[in-house]
Amino acid sequence: MKHDELDGLYCSVARTWSVIGERWTMMVLRECFRGERRYDHFRSKLGVGSNVLNDRLRVLVAEEVLERVRYQDSPPRFEYRLTAKGADLYPVLLSLMSWGDKHKNPVPPVRLVHRRCGHAAQPRMTCAHCGEAVSWREMTAEFEPDAW
Amino acid sequence: MKHDELDGLYCSVARTWSVIGERWTMMVLRECFRGERRYDHFRSKLGVGSNVLNDRLRVLVAEEVLERVRYQDSPPRFEYRLTAKGADLYPVLLSLMSWGDKHKNPVPPVRLVHRRCGHAAQPRMTCAHCGEAVSWREMTAEFEPDAW
Repeated sequence: MKHDELDGLYCSVARTWSVIGERWTMMVLRECFRGERRYDHFRSKLGVGSNVLNDRLRVLVAEEVLERVRYQDSPPRFEYRLTAKGADLYPVLLSLMSWGDKHKNPVPPVRLVHRRCGHAAQPRMTCAHCGEAVSWREMTAEFEPDAW
Repeated sequence: MKHDELDGLYCSVARTWSVIGERWTMMVLRECFRGERRYDHFRSKLGVGSNVLNDRLRVLVAEEVLERVRYQDSPPRFEYRLTAKGADLYPVLLSLMSWGDKHKNPVPPVRLVHRRCGHAAQPRMTCAHCGEAVSWREMTAEFEPDAW
């Protein structure tokens, strides 16, 4: 199977992975979630070749995760903005960050403050029904007959 | 920058991405979270070459996400089991699944039941302080001086 074919599978993990599961893609999105929008910033911060960066941005725009917007007319200049669909990937970023904070960095490099409640926020994945944190061992998965 | 160098950055997203942010890695982990442990299963289900699969398993074992365990002596056979550290990646899987359910699959291929409360569970990322679902717009990030 080729990576592109993940998008054709009846699996929400695989189809999401077909959008973001390439080297560097999540690093581009990390910059976007920090408020960065410019090609030159992505390029210099990540230190990746333009062919790789162009490909990742192309996919993210095609998938409507980012929107390419002209912000200046002469000369024409464009920037990349997270769409609402892209902002919905924030829990992916948070879950990656949480794992890294727990297992990779004794002192977390970023502290998050939840402005809505005003407190330092350790994000966690919870059950929308009971509100408790969920763990793998407590979940049962029921598959549609044609799920991949 | 090379992908390997992500692990050296003071960023929990980058360091986690250095472990799982390669083509196929999350697909291997998806199978593990479904209870699969065998090399032959990974190989046939994912349809990837043995060089790719070997590399991904090698990294996951080196990072102590998976444990390679001998389950038969003659001939010797091994399987791959999620460690506690690996099971901590479950929120990453859930966040990928949730995004795919919302944006890619009108009919979600998997229903999750939270055995602890007995209900169908839509997992969501919440603030551990106030318990509300978090969104990007409501969070402020404060960086350590030497954060990447």
